[in-house]
Parts: sequence; C-alpha cells; structure tokens
Amino acid sequence: MDKPVRVAVIGTGFMGRMHAQAWRTAHRFFDLPGTPVLSVLVGTNAERTAAAAGRWGFDETATDWRSVVGRPDIDVVDICTPGDTHAEIALAALAAGKHVMCEKPLANDVADADRMVAAAGRAATQGVVSMCGFSYRRTPALSLARRLIEDGRLGEIRHVRAQYLQDWLSDAEAPFTWRLDKERAGSGTLGDIGAHSIDTAQWLTGDRIDGVSATLRTFALTRPVLGEQVGLGGRAHEGAERRHVSVDDAVAFTAAFSGGALGVFEATRMATGHRNSNRIEINGDRGSVAFDFRSMNELDFYDAADPAGEQGFRRIQANEAEHPYAGAWWPPGHGLGYEHLFTHQVVDFVRAVAGDGVAHRELASPTFADAARVQRVLAAVESSAARQSVYTPIEGVSR
Amino acid sequence: MDKPVRVAVIGTGFMGRMHAQAWRTAHRFFDLPGTPVLSVLVGTNAERTAAAAGRWGFDETATDWRSVVGRPDIDVVDICTPGDTHAEIALAALAAGKHVMCEKPLANDVADADRMVAAAGRAATQGVVSMCGFSYRRTPALSLARRLIEDGRLGEIRHVRAQYLQDWLSDAEAPFTWRLDKERAGSGTLGDIGAHSIDTAQWLTGDRIDGVSATLRTFALTRPVLGEQVGLGGRAHEGAERRHVSVDDAVAFTAAFSGGALGVFEATRMATGHRNSNRIEINGDRGSVAFDFRSMNELDFYDAADPAGEQGFRRIQANEAEHPYAGAWWPPGHGLGYEHLFTHQVVDFVRAVAGDGVAHRELASPTFADAARVQRVLAAVESSAARQSVYTPIEGVSR
Amino acid sequence: MDKPVRVAVIGTGFMGRMHAQAWRTAHRFFDLPGTPVLSVLVGTNAERTAAAAGRWGFDETATDWRSVVGRPDIDVVDICTPGDTHAEIALAALAAGKHVMCEKPLANDVADADRMVAAAGRAATQGVVSMCGFSYRRTPALSLARRLIEDGRLGEIRHVRAQYLQDWLSDAEAPFTWRLDKERAGSGTLGDIGAHSIDTAQWLTGDRIDGVSATLRTFALTRPVLGEQVGLGGRAHEGAERRHVSVDDAVAFTAAFSGGALGVFEATRMATGHRNSNRIEINGDRGSVAFDFRSMNELDFYDAADPAGEQGFRRIQANEAEHPYAGAWWPPGHGLGYEHLFTHQVVDFVRAVAGDGVAHRELASPTFADAARVQRVLAAVESSAARQSVYTPIEGVSR
Amino acid sequence: MDKPVRVAVIGTGFMGRMHAQAWRTAHRFFDLPGTPVLSVLVGTNAERTAAAAGRWGFDETATDWRSVVGRPDIDVVDICTPGDTHAEIALAALAAGKHVMCEKPLANDVADADRMVAAAGRAATQGVVSMCGFSYRRTPALSLARRLIEDGRLGEIRHVRAQYLQDWLSDAEAPFTWRLDKERAGSGTLGDIGAHSIDTAQWLTGDRIDGVSATLRTFALTRPVLGEQVGLGGRAHEGAERRHVSVDDAVAFTAAFSGGALGVFEATRMATGHRNSNRIEINGDRGSVAFDFRSMNELDFYDAADPAGEQGFRRIQANEAEHPYAGAWWPPGHGLGYEHLFTHQVVDFVRAVAGDGVAHRELASPTFADAARVQRVLAAVESSAARQSVYTPIEGVSR
Repeated sequence: MDKPVRVAVIGTGFMGRMHAQAWRTAHRFFDLPGTPVLSVLVGTNAERTAAAAGRWGFDETATDWRSVVGRPDIDVVDICTPGDTHAEIALAALAAGKHVMCEKPLANDVADADRMVAAAGRAATQGVVSMCGFSYRRTPALSLARRLIEDGRLGEIRHVRAQYLQDWLSDAEAPFTWRLDKERAGSGTLGDIGAHSIDTAQWLTGDRIDGVSATLRTFALTRPVLGEQVGLGGRAHEGAERRHVSVDDAVAFTAAFSGGALGVFEATRMATGHRNSNRIEINGDRGSVAFDFRSMNELDFYDAADPAGEQGFRRIQANEAEHPYAGAWWPPGHGLGYEHLFTHQVVDFVRAVAGDGVAHRELASPTFADAARVQRVLAAVESSAARQSVYTPIEGVSR
Repeated sequence: MDKPVRVAVIGTGFMGRMHAQAWRTAHRFFDLPGTPVLSVLVGTNAERTAAAAGRWGFDETATDWRSVVGRPDIDVVDICTPGDTHAEIALAALAAGKHVMCEKPLANDVADADRMVAAAGRAATQGVVSMCGFSYRRTPALSLARRLIEDGRLGEIRHVRAQYLQDWLSDAEAPFTWRLDKERAGSGTLGDIGAHSIDTAQWLTGDRIDGVSATLRTFALTRPVLGEQVGLGGRAHEGAERRHVSVDDAVAFTAAFSGGALGVFEATRMATGHRNSNRIEINGDRGSVAFDFRSMNELDFYDAADPAGEQGFRRIQANEAEHPYAGAWWPPGHGLGYEHLFTHQVVDFVRAVAGDGVAHRELASPTFADAARVQRVLAAVESSAARQSVYTPIEGVSR
Repeated sequence: MDKPVRVAVIGTGFMGRMHAQAWRTAHRFFDLPGTPVLSVLVGTNAERTAAAAGRWGFDETATDWRSVVGRPDIDVVDICTPGDTHAEIALAALAAGKHVMCEKPLANDVADADRMVAAAGRAATQGVVSMCGFSYRRTPALSLARRLIEDGRLGEIRHVRAQYLQDWLSDAEAPFTWRLDKERAGSGTLGDIGAHSIDTAQWLTGDRIDGVSATLRTFALTRPVLGEQVGLGGRAHEGAERRHVSVDDAVAFTAAFSGGALGVFEATRMATGHRNSNRIEINGDRGSVAFDFRSMNELDFYDAADPAGEQGFRRIQANEAEHPYAGAWWPPGHGLGYEHLFTHQVVDFVRAVAGDGVAHRELASPTFADAARVQRVLAAVESSAARQSVYTPIEGVSR
Repeated sequence: MDKPVRVAVIGTGFMGRMHAQAWRTAHRFFDLPGTPVLSVLVGTNAERTAAAAGRWGFDETATDWRSVVGRPDIDVVDICTPGDTHAEIALAALAAGKHVMCEKPLANDVADADRMVAAAGRAATQGVVSMCGFSYRRTPALSLARRLIEDGRLGEIRHVRAQYLQDWLSDAEAPFTWRLDKERAGSGTLGDIGAHSIDTAQWLTGDRIDGVSATLRTFALTRPVLGEQVGLGGRAHEGAERRHVSVDDAVAFTAAFSGGALGVFEATRMATGHRNSNRIEINGDRGSVAFDFRSMNELDFYDAADPAGEQGFRRIQANEAEHPYAGAWWPPGHGLGYEHLFTHQVVDFVRAVAGDGVAHRELASPTFADAARVQRVLAAVESSAARQSVYTPIEGVSR
C-alpha cells in the first residue's frame, strides 16, 4: 500500500466532489497496489477551488489545467469537467504520459472521441492507462448481472429495456444551466443520462448496438437565467432573462443489438416523480435480470431453470461476500450508496495503474474505445432523430 | 331488473368463457336496467360447444353464427372469435339490428374496421349500440387514472410509457397456435396485446397517436405443430412437423401524441419471467400515474402539488366506494381479479343498451370508431416497421 | 355434473353475498361431482331477504332458519350469520342430517364450539360433512406455501409472524356496529380477523399453538350509534347516542408452537392506511415464505438451497397450472380476486359432499375440530390478556 | 473548520471501522465547528491494531485504553468495544474530562448503565458531552418520520410494530462468536439488534415504553468453535469443539407505551432470507409511517388527510434538500448507504462538542440517560421472559 498514486482532479463540480471522496476512501477498504494521494485540485475560480480543496483534502490547487497535467509529481489526471473540454485535457495528459480517468460522456462528438481513442492507444504502448467513468457499471448488483449473463444464465438475449428517468427539469420554469447548452454539454438528456443506459446495456449483454431509430424532444424551449447574484432559490425572479434550450429534454429509441436483441431506450429529465430512476431489464431465453437504481443494492433475477410452479423473480441483495466489490465493505444487508460506485471505479483504476504486469490493465474499463462506441451510438441517435427516426446504423467502428 | 337482455356469444375459447362469466355475474352485483340472459352459445364444434354451453349456463347452442345473429329472440351479439371473422359477423348482426359487443382488435385490417365503423354508425341511428372489448379500460385503478387525468391532476402530459410483457412464447419450441398465423390473427403480439396498450394510452390521455416509428421482431421463425392427437403436454413430440410463424413475437415503437406527449411502447410474448405484465406510466408537468396489472388493484399516483419533502408516489388501493366500479363489490382492500374487468364491461354495455334515453349510450366505450383508430395505429406500426422504422403518420382519420 | 347440491344460505350480509357468488360460480369453472343449486336464502327481514334472493339468484326465501334446516329438499346448510347463532343453527342442521358449512369463527366460545364438534362427529358417522369457512386457506399462493412446507422446503420452522391490519375503525367516530358488541360478535378484532391468522398459521405449519401471551386493547371506548333512519353515511349526526364498545380494537400476542416455532401475532382494525393487509411470514432453517393479501396472487419464497450469491426471495405468481386451484381459471398472470377464495371453498366442499367414497371427505377442511382449536386459542388469548399477559397454555384439546 | 477534535477510537472490529470512516468523512461534506483528527486507535492485539490504524488513517496506536483516555492531546473517546467494557472505559474517560461517544447498547446491565448516566451527568456540568451510538436514528428517512410525528401528522399514536430480522445465525452450525457469550455481549439478539428497535420506537414516538410482556428463544443451544488456526471459512471442521450459547437467538415482546400505543417487537438472527431487515411502522389516528432498512432511502407515509379515493402510502425518497442530513450529499435520488448513518452521528456529535454555547449540546442524542432507558427495557424484557411473559413494568426511571 505504500506506492503513492498522485492524482490531479480537474473540475470542482458535482463530479469532482464524488471523485475526491472516492480517491480518499478506496484504500481504506480495499487492498490496493498503490495509495491515492489527492495532490492537486484544478478549478477556474481560484477562491472556490481553494475552498473545495480545503474541504476535500487536496494538497494544492491550480486554476489552469495546462500547468498541471504535465507535472512530474502527478501520476493520474482525473477529468471531471463538462464534455467540451474532455478531449483537449485528455490529449495533453496522455501526451505527457499520465494515466487518465475521464468522466462520461467521453467527448461531445465522435471526432473528438476518436482522437482520444487514438491518443490512448499510443499511450497504452507506454503503459499508460486510460478509462472513462461510466460509474453505474460498478454497482455490485449490476456487476452481478454482468456475471450471470457472461455465465450464460440468461441464454440468448432477446430484450433490453432501459429507462433513465429524472425530473429535475420537470418544472418548465426551472432555471437554465450549462447542461442545457449544446456547446458545453454536447447534448442534453441523451449524453447526460442516456449515455449511461447505452454503456450499461452494451456492457451487460456483451453485445454492440448496431443501429437505432430515435426521437428527441425538447418540451421547454426557453428557460429563465438565474444570475449568480440572484442567488439561492431554485427559481428565477419574475422577468428574468430567458435563454434558448439547445439540447433535448428527452430521448427515446429502439436499438438492434449485434446479438439479435431488441432494445428499447428512454431517457428524460422531465418524468415527474422520478428523482433518479435508472432502470434496466434484460430478457433471455433462459432467464432475466431487472434492476432499478432506486433499489441499488438489489438485483431481480429470474431463472427459467427453476422448477415449474416455483418460478419467479428473486430479489438478490447484492452485498454479500460472493458479490463483486461488496465483500470489502460491511456485513450483508447493510447497504451501499451512490458514492461507492466511484470508489469501486478508483479501486479498479488503481489496480490497473499500479498493479504488477499487464493483466490488471483490463480492469480500467470502459476503455476510451468502449466509450467512443457509446459516442457513436449517441451520434446515430441524433442523426436518426434528425431524419424522421429512420433506422440508422452505427458508423463503422472496427469491431 | 326485469327486462331481459338476451345474448348470443359467438366463440367458445378463452374469451367466450370470460364473457359468459361476465354476463352471468353483472346483475348480481350492479343495478342494471336489464338482466342478461345467456341464450345461445355458438361454436364450430357441436360437441365441444354443447359441453361449454352446459358448463357456462347457456340455454341453447348453434354451430353457425349465421343462423343466430338475426334471430328475433336475440338482443345482443357478442363476438369472441379470432379477428379474421369479426367484420363479417358484426356486419350481419348490425344489419339485423342487434347490439354488438366485439372483442379486440376490432378487425384484422383497417378496411374491415372502417366497414364496421360505417355499419355501426348506420345502426346507431336506429338505437343500436356497438362496442369493442378493450377490457383493461375497466380496471378500477385505470379508471381512476383516467379520472385524475381528466381532472387535470397530471397537467400537461409529456410522457407515456407502456409495456405489455408476456412470456408464454419464450420457449422457442412452444407449439404453434392460430395466434401465430397472420391469416387468422392479423398480427402477432402487436394486435394481441400491443393493441391494449395503444387503446389504454389514447383513452387515458384523451389524446390520439399522430404517428409512430416502429420495429417488429420474430425471434422464433418456425414452431412445431401440436396435433390434437399428440395430446396433452405443452411441447410437441420429437420430429413434429414445423410451421412458419407469420407474425411478430415482439414490437417496439415510439409515438407522437396529438397533445405533444412522447410515447414509448413495447409488447412481447417472449419476456421471460413476465406472465402478464401490462404496465403503463404517464408523466405530466403536475403529476404522474403508474400501473402494472400484476398489482391490478393499485394505482401509483404522484402529485407534484404535495409539499416539498413529502412528495412521492402514493399507492392507492383502488377498490373503495370512491373508485369506479369498486363500490359494488366487497369492502376496500379485498381485491378484484381479471374477470371483473369483463363484468364491468357488461355493466356499461347493458346500461347503454337497456337504459332509458340516449345519455347512457356513451357508456358503450370504446366505440367501433375508437377501435378503428387503434387499428390505424396498428397499421402504421406495421408500415413503419416495413420501411426502416421511419416516422409514419397515422392515416387520416376524421378527427 | 348432474347431481344437484341444494343449498340453504342463512344470512344476507357480506358473507351471505360472497357465499352466494361462490355457489353460483364453482361448477362453471371446476369439474364437480354435484351441481350447487341456490335453493333458499334465509334472513330475518323478509323484504330485504326477498330483494337479496332476487339479486343473488335464490329460488326461495325464508325468515326463520328453523323452518329450513330440516327440509328434505335441502342438502347443505351454509351459516353466514353472526357468531352467536352458529351453534344453534349448526346443531339443528346436523341433527337433521344436513351437510354444514359454517362461517368463522366457529362459535363465540369454546363450550359452543365443543358442542358443535361433538355433533359434527356424530353426524360424520352418517356421512354428513361439516366444515368451517376460513376462506384465506384457499388463496392459491397460501396453498402453495402449505405445499412447500409439507414438502419440507422450509425445514424446521422457527418463526411465524402474522399481521392482520385493517383501518375501518381508525376514525374514533366511526359508527357502532354489531361487530363491536361482545354479545353478537364474541370478540372484536380477535375473532373477526385475528382468528384468520391463527387458522392460517396452524394450517401452514401443520403445528398447533401450545400457549400464548397476549394483550387486548380498545382505543375507542364508545362510538356513536347510527340509527337506521339516520341513513347511509359513514358518520353519525352530532349528538348521536353513543354506545359502549365491548370488544377489542386490537390484539397482539406471542405464541409457542408445538413444533418449537415462536409466533408473533397482531391484529387490528385501527392501522391507518391498511384496508386489508393480511400478512404472514414463516421462517425455517431451510427457507422462508412471505405473503400479503394486498398481493394475493403472489407468494415470496426464499430457498436457502439456492447457490450463495443468488439467494433471494423469489416472487411467485401463484396462478399457473401447477398451483392449487389456479389452473381452472384463466392463463397465468391474469389474477384472481377475493371472491375466488370462496369459490375454491365451495369446490372442495362439494367434492367432499358429493364425491364417491370417503377419500374426498378430508377436502372439507378445516373441520369443526380444527376450528374449535382456533376457538381455544382465542379463549387463551383472552384469558392471558386478562391476567397481565402471562403465558397461558391452550386448554387440553385431544391432540 | 480549523479547531481540531482529536479522537481516540477504542476497538478495531466492525464498529471501529465504521466509526473511523465517519470521523474521516464528516467534515468533507458538512460544515462543522471542528475538524476530526484520527489520533489514536486502541486494540488489544498490537499487530492487528497497527495494520488497522494504517489502513484507516490513525496517527498512533495503543493496546491499553487506560494509557489513552486521559491523554491531554485527546478530546474524544469513542468506545467501540463489546458491551462488557463500556462502563469502565466510559467512566475513566468522563473522569478525565473527555467527551465520550459509546456504541450501543450502553452497557450490559442497568447498574452499569446507571453509573454511566451519573458520571455523564457530573461531567456535563463541566461541559463534557456524552452520547450513545444508536446509529439508525440518523437515517434521513427515519429522521423525516420523527419530524412528521413531532409535527402531529400522525395524530395520536396507537400502534408501533418493529421487526429486526437477520439470518446470519440461521444455520445451526454457524460458528460460535463472542456475540453468543452472555459475559461479553450481555444478551444476544435482544441487546444487539432488539435494542435498536427499542431506541428507534421510543425516539420516533417521543413516548417511553412503560412495560413489556416478553419471550426469549434460543434455537441452537451449542455451536462449533472456530479456532483461529482453522481459519477463515464460515463453518467449523467436523468434530470441532462445541460451546454453549448463553444468549437468546430471538426475542418477541408486546409493549405498552406511555402515550397509550400498543407495541409489538420482534428481533431475530435466524429469519432465513433476511440479511438485515430493520423495519418499523407506526400508526396514528391521522396517519402512518413505515420503514424498512432494505430501502433505507425511502419512507412510506400515509396521510389520512388526503382526499378520499386518493389515499395511499406515499413512498418518499428521503434524500432531498428538505430532508434531514440529506442536503449535504448529492442530488436527490442518488442514495446513501449504511456508513452515512455514522457520518451523521459524528456530524451531530462534533457540533455538540465544538459548537459555541450550550444550544448545540442537545444534538448529542441519545444521551446516556436515553440509552439507560433502553437498557431498562432490555432488563424488563429478560425479567418478563423469565417469569412466563407476565407484564413487567419498566423499573422506575426518573421521568
């Protein structure tokens, strides 16, 4: 546990906070080949960054990531900024030989994603590890689902249905944020949460999405701007300036999987009553699994091999010693929370980065190439939606 | 309660049995302006029909519906046969001035449906009532949802998501049935259970589906034929003749509703583990409702007007005096079952048929015109699926 | 199906209505050795009885059960009156050689119950069948639980926890009814719904309750009287006469089972929010079952023999061909309701009464002796509650 | 955030680990008047303690708590040892003027608990804070329940039903541990998990338990000893030495609350299938709340003031800004886990210890006096169980 893994986190928002907690915690519960050190926190606003660094336990701060990503005393660059900056930061960090963890979506478009994949590939030959942060993969219940599917327990996969439902934009007068600006965010619900469903679905099934038929929808065309001085409330003042929403509020698409399965995806930030319902269900000819993040510690598993008359979805509390990641924590049934997905992500990343040999490298999953494949699906969704939902094959990824 | 309503049921299958129970039961619990009489049961096989009539309590049997639908001692013709025969029987019955209840889907194609609508319209001028049997409408929990939406409790509707999941064809070796034959059934999962979701969605929202982008899928291309002599099991013998499955096993489509909502529909008979999960959820800007037929006595209702910090889906047991139909049965919390949807259907139909004046006529819902609108959606789904899922407007119904 | 089974139903209340529906329906779905005939409905109020008989389909009515129970054209006397009249009616009917179905609780005290057992025993030697109507036994999900336990799937039973929660008396101003009068009802919640839990628990485990430690509680000591002239509403007028509540609103007790299990029972009619939550869970060293009547079509089953990491309660939809009673109805997943418990009760009773030989007799379960054992538990509960909850063995039943 | 709060944690087991994580984390998310410093970890085994201290981030270690509790560079003594040592350590620490956090149950008997209360009272006059660690209180969903009850939303409380179900001893051959030794643990399930239910119930209702009628049960009278050399597995080798289990496997009792409510409590470590189901439901005449730790982020709330026909338990995701503690974490719907209860406990304790003035002192709840009241209930349960479950008033606490 002695080898330090010195981390620079770029970004002081929600994701920066989650990642910091994960870097602080991973080695407290897991046996790791290296010990994370919170070296530098990078944010554009010096004062706010200093405050965050103090609270989160970083040694130093910086306001320009360019001054940090090449520093010899940094081992890992952890990118937690909006999507429009991912490519530039990642390319610089990889060029400097740093291991890179990058929040999802990998980039705001396929071209950037491809450049990142290429750079990651070159860096990999020097032993540099890169990984994209689709954190939901590391929910123990979903990792268990993955194992059941890999083991053939679901048989031939026929149906994938994924819904990611939130409601924080349900109020049409909820204020404008950078996530509603196509320039910054790349897309709206699609890239923000739909991307999670896409990654989870491809990863769980082990199949690729070959094509999609998609619809995008923006229900609230403008939203009031909440000046910083305006302050605290969740609502803008009367007569506030309004800004055009340039991204989707909701997306729905059907998908053809390479293994023959039919996918149905829906993501929205306007499903009133759903704070964060991230659901996926997969049906094969031998069994099914169903998951909802509202019950993140549980997986429903149906085994068609159970005797007739005793068949039913069994609700597995996936925090036992037998379950991925779960054994490192506390006794069965005591429950993990959202932050632990990020801790597991750090665990695997540190093992990939600091472990002996190359076998551990594959723990850094999804790779940039995996994440670029998600990006291609996002692009195809937008393309299909722009052309009357016509079925749109995913652009040729080398498969 | 004295006025008899003499019924001829055409068809001795699953639906004939459900309808018979409903006709036998409705007046036992509800105040009706007429008393159903099970006059004639019509089936092609004389022996089986006689046995069924004895068990179900019919006065007479017949093997040819033509000999029955014009009889002066028959008031209602209740059509429970496969879809390919609906139009012919209904047209004859309407021409003879009989009230007609017709199982869903109304017909196997739009042309037939339109002829039925026209005939029903002509007959209506003579006081003849016709109605299509989308039985799920009369689940008290869904009727409550309808009332909440009509009352504006959900506000502007943005999302409709409907899944109808069954698994009785999940085993690829499950035997061939008439429901897999396009000639008889019109379509597969689409018309069998997808039609329910379409009707429910349009009825609940009060909106029409304007267009769809759809995919159909057949996973098992052939199935073994189970000769009657082969007998009992659910599986054919080794080397049994195989027959081509000419309909869809699964369907998925997105839909644009006339009121602006985005619909996502999926229906399948191969969702392993789901015996009969008929689910629908609707999100508006003021609230949401969610329903699953597995818990058919309950409706989940989210009211965004609840105070912050106390918001949540509330699970309403929809069998209280305040709820549609429920008060006629037993005390709250004691639960209705599947058969009671059919009883409620008979209740409304008898009131429409035998009530004084014309006000009761509208209880006979959905009308043939409503059902023809569902048929047009089915046709558009098939058309879109045949043309790479391109968005396909519903053919001009007079709106 | 030709042999008639002519039934006299005594009582025109809620239970009379449920039984009538069951007698009307059983032979429509099940193969029975006799066909129920609704011969006579007996009620004290001639006018109301006539109206009910018309609606429910009885051939005749009577106002005095004494004139009916000995009639040669009656085969079965079905007692649906309050508990204070059960013994007298049953004794007369048995003496007349009639088969007797008697609603629960068997009687209002142990002495009456014992006289009924003795009479039933004498009558049985003449082939007369008697049975007590603990209807919940015939929920398919609970029948499945019984089978699993009989088959040893739960191993050694350690825990029984049963809760029967209603809330129709939760409002302290809800009006007085005969169910709150000890003279008529025998006890309150204890005999009304607690008795169901006791019967279910003993039946499921196959064990007897050996002793109890109990508490009774009456929260609302008086309630307003709702004069008939006052009418229909649920609340009495201001200044209405008030009447003393002479029974328990709630009961709780721990129980020792003959097989070593520890039981925890609670029943109340003041559990706000629970219309009719009849729950029971049983834990053995090899598995567990859990049931709630709110989801009456489902049983949760935990099998400790499932592989580590895949263990969990599986939710079985207990309406498949493999499940007790369920195959006679409709396809899996379509759901039964409350009334079907009564239909199943009639099915078993008719088979016991009209079947060939004596093997079918045991279908008439629970016997009066079984029900008397429940009565002894009720008595012990009252006795323990009266003596500071001290552990009170169940009075010596011949075991 | 500058003022250090230097902590010595006594105990290196499960609870030591949870507390360490909480002390490390609290100030990372909450604004605190002092910053916890993990100064010393105390454990009997020097080597294991050193390893744990390294992993958990303590500055120093010690093997004798006596050498630590009086050190001038220690502000807080946090007792995470088995119950038989609590009193001695707490008394020494309080005598030395240290703030004390003590794991539950407060002690192994009432006499020790009373001595601790007296010492805490004396120390309080010097500004010394003491608190007992009933961590479940600080589940946001339960804190919300507390607030609803305090606000009168449930009205007059009538029913409390609490079940704490685990199954880690369900296998009768699961090995012996110190928790099965009355000398070390004081009692079995009763003090281990039953104590949580008692504390939660008294705290939520704001009432005291006045008396109990109880049963204790030990199902497995001996268990195999798992020698350390035998190693890691969960099962002892054939022929292993067996040791007598001197505590209860399960406990059940009814309780009378000072406010008139009827309580039903059950706790067991042999409820097969329940890893950690900590449930409590409370019914008042105006509403109800229900909670299960399996869904620890959710509270079910029934408001009888909802309109008729719209009533139902609403499932509140209790991690919004409006909910206790939750706002400091991440966006609504993303879920907390078991560890966060301990973090919240540290948050309140640090505020009580380091806050200005005395107003914050009451955050250190439950006090030793509160915890001693739980201890008296435990004692009354044992006393009642030893005397045939006779109702046993709680020994006179000054109220």
